[in-house]
Amino acid sequence: MADQAGQPPALDNLSLADKAPASKATGQVVTPFDVSGGVDETGKLLPVDYDKLVREFGATPLTPDLLERFEKVTGHRPHRFMRRGIVFSHRELSKILDRHEKGQPFYLYTGRGPSSDSMHVGHTVPFEFTKWLQDVFDVPLVIMMTDDEKYMHSAKIDVDDAKRYTKANARDIIAVGFDMKKTFIFSDFEFVGGAFYENICRMAKRITINQVRGTFGFNDSNNIGEFHFCATQSATAFATSFPQIFGTDRKKVSSIPCLIPCAIDQDPYFRQCREHAEKMKYKKPSLIHAIFLPALQGPGSKMSASIDSSAIFMNDTPNKIKNKINKFAFSGGRETAEEHRELGGNSKVDVPFQYLTFFLEDDEELERIRASYEKGEMLTGEMKQRCIAELQEYVKGFQERRAKVTDEIVAEFMRPRALEWKGNPNPVVAEKK
Amino acid sequence: MADQAGQPPALDNLSLADKAPASKATGQVVTPFDVSGGVDETGKLLPVDYDKLVREFGATPLTPDLLERFEKVTGHRPHRFMRRGIVFSHRELSKILDRHEKGQPFYLYTGRGPSSDSMHVGHTVPFEFTKWLQDVFDVPLVIMMTDDEKYMHSAKIDVDDAKRYTKANARDIIAVGFDMKKTFIFSDFEFVGGAFYENICRMAKRITINQVRGTFGFNDSNNIGEFHFCATQSATAFATSFPQIFGTDRKKVSSIPCLIPCAIDQDPYFRQCREHAEKMKYKKPSLIHAIFLPALQGPGSKMSASIDSSAIFMNDTPNKIKNKINKFAFSGGRETAEEHRELGGNSKVDVPFQYLTFFLEDDEELERIRASYEKGEMLTGEMKQRCIAELQEYVKGFQERRAKVTDEIVAEFMRPRALEWKGNPNPVVAEKK
Repeated sequence: MADQAGQPPALDNLSLADKAPASKATGQVVTPFDVSGGVDETGKLLPVDYDKLVREFGATPLTPDLLERFEKVTGHRPHRFMRRGIVFSHRELSKILDRHEKGQPFYLYTGRGPSSDSMHVGHTVPFEFTKWLQDVFDVPLVIMMTDDEKYMHSAKIDVDDAKRYTKANARDIIAVGFDMKKTFIFSDFEFVGGAFYENICRMAKRITINQVRGTFGFNDSNNIGEFHFCATQSATAFATSFPQIFGTDRKKVSSIPCLIPCAIDQDPYFRQCREHAEKMKYKKPSLIHAIFLPALQGPGSKMSASIDSSAIFMNDTPNKIKNKINKFAFSGGRETAEEHRELGGNSKVDVPFQYLTFFLEDDEELERIRASYEKGEMLTGEMKQRCIAELQEYVKGFQERRAKVTDEIVAEFMRPRALEWKGNPNPVVAEKK
Repeated sequence: MADQAGQPPALDNLSLADKAPASKATGQVVTPFDVSGGVDETGKLLPVDYDKLVREFGATPLTPDLLERFEKVTGHRPHRFMRRGIVFSHRELSKILDRHEKGQPFYLYTGRGPSSDSMHVGHTVPFEFTKWLQDVFDVPLVIMMTDDEKYMHSAKIDVDDAKRYTKANARDIIAVGFDMKKTFIFSDFEFVGGAFYENICRMAKRITINQVRGTFGFNDSNNIGEFHFCATQSATAFATSFPQIFGTDRKKVSSIPCLIPCAIDQDPYFRQCREHAEKMKYKKPSLIHAIFLPALQGPGSKMSASIDSSAIFMNDTPNKIKNKINKFAFSGGRETAEEHRELGGNSKVDVPFQYLTFFLEDDEELERIRASYEKGEMLTGEMKQRCIAELQEYVKGFQERRAKVTDEIVAEFMRPRALEWKGNPNPVVAEKK
């Protein structure tokens, strides 16, 4: 499939969105707080129908034309996530490409709600993609750790827990490989204030209780912090929130937009943000959406930070990875080896194959695996073996990098400071530490 | 009336609360955003019924016993506001007196929503009283400038306006005479963050949309910032919000309560705060409530920062004060001098006399004026003359002090820093500027 760069994502082969008829998938709910494809007549959990979701959200599918333009403008072949329909949808990505073409400034914004001491492989997907975008575009990146949001939404998490998770997860995120000179990671508990708080208020003033209720499915028993948080998440999309990075020339900085790589469930926040941005004399953020890595048990079930068997965690040992995949990973193979040889496996529902789709870089090898599995040449055990090897290698590389991330490095990533990048309109001359 | 120290507030003579029967005063509404005594059958605005309000709010009237204890514990005769029913109600003031008696730490907290470039005399009332309390107790004081709240609630005020008002009003407040060593004034736009923001989140998590709707009379069209702000106002009541002042020993600092001198309309915020404080392992704040200075047009009408003729402003010239009182101040005098001599004036509704009640220190002189007016010996013109002289002197003293408040002084009052007071458990040793 190497020759398919710039081609449409091979949805028929590789998309994780099970093409269930829409009529069956009743009750699909996707908000930042609840992701469910709904339940069929028999009570079976259904996978998220991403096509339906994009239509409902009013986002735009990533088309072959846009991928082609991406390659032309950046000189980089689109990331495997983009080629394979994992990063599948966007809002005004073309505007960011226009700016990149003209050498106009923009920045990247992504984030994480820290809710446990170790991230799982699913959590690293948007960060892997964001790191790649940072390398491609050479622009500043802000990563928001929404410890305030996590505290507000969970009866079990107190302020100190949330702050501890932030530090632990920041270390995980840094281990993905971000460039310190171009990256600012912040905890809301630490960073809310000043110019950022002003933008939070500017956004909060424009959002009514009614709008939040509609957008996020909250009711009158939700707390005021939950309602208010959407203003915080939006304020990060405005460059004026970061005078340390972009300077204090308000008019100039107001014209700098951002591109937000995120999982599709975060889109509701930014729909709201985009609705009000221009009235605030700011640029609307652009977005690029990813689907979710499925749980080991398959696309219909949930990957959860609190259920060890649902996911590969970034601190799992090689042996644990092997056992989890062998024991829990849902297989698209047949009942018996004979049947499998005869009829072939179903790669569309096979979790080990889906994981390879996320993590195996080589398009040709992935296509060979798929074809061989579908023809029945490759057995379930072999598929799992290949997946285990790939994930063991991925997690090992991560753990090696993470071991080198000291407290000092975390502190420096999280220190509000000037950043350095090629197109910086206010180049760093001298800064006191 | 000098011999009446520690006696019940002379409500019959001096209270500004018109004793209208409760049945008449339909539709009384007092929230931080709306203060109205309601309207009678003829459509006439009614004054606020403070007795009814205290009952509805569940606060406690300031009794002669408590005033007596106040004098005994502090060694100070109660302030004229306390003697005259202007400061008329409280919540657990006795707990603060207990602590003062035992030399246990507490602090004072008051604030202002900055909504115009100059404050009027009504605005200075709680600050005059707070300054006096600071002198009496010798404790730290935090003054919160709720520029975020004002921005959130007004379509006409943008962020820069609110910040400008904060600086202008801080200068006014400093001119009341606060001790810089013991006083920290902060703008929410500048100070929200860190330990303070953590307490805002702790409070916000405990308050539902439903509770705010009930307490403040908001509806679904109010914005999320308005709903959320009550957590900010409450967070100032916790000493852990101010590590600069009280240190970072969380357990020790959590046990330090505050006393909040405020106008009665702010009580709803702190009812909510008191409801949750102990679950947060903090002390409930104590409160002491003042009534409102009536508008020039009388207790039923509104004193407004945006209606010049409704109030004496702290930047009014002596001549302007004279003209405003002569022209606009509602009089309790009779139609003609003859009738007045015969029947006497009504001091209860006479605005110049009410202003004297607030600003004339000498109890005996005030009582002489009242008696003379009621008997018809003193005419309306003379009453106005006396009021003009008193207010000209009050405003002149204020303006002289204000002229000496430089930008540097404002900046120092507003710099987060250690404070100095006698009972400071963490005495200031050395602090970098």
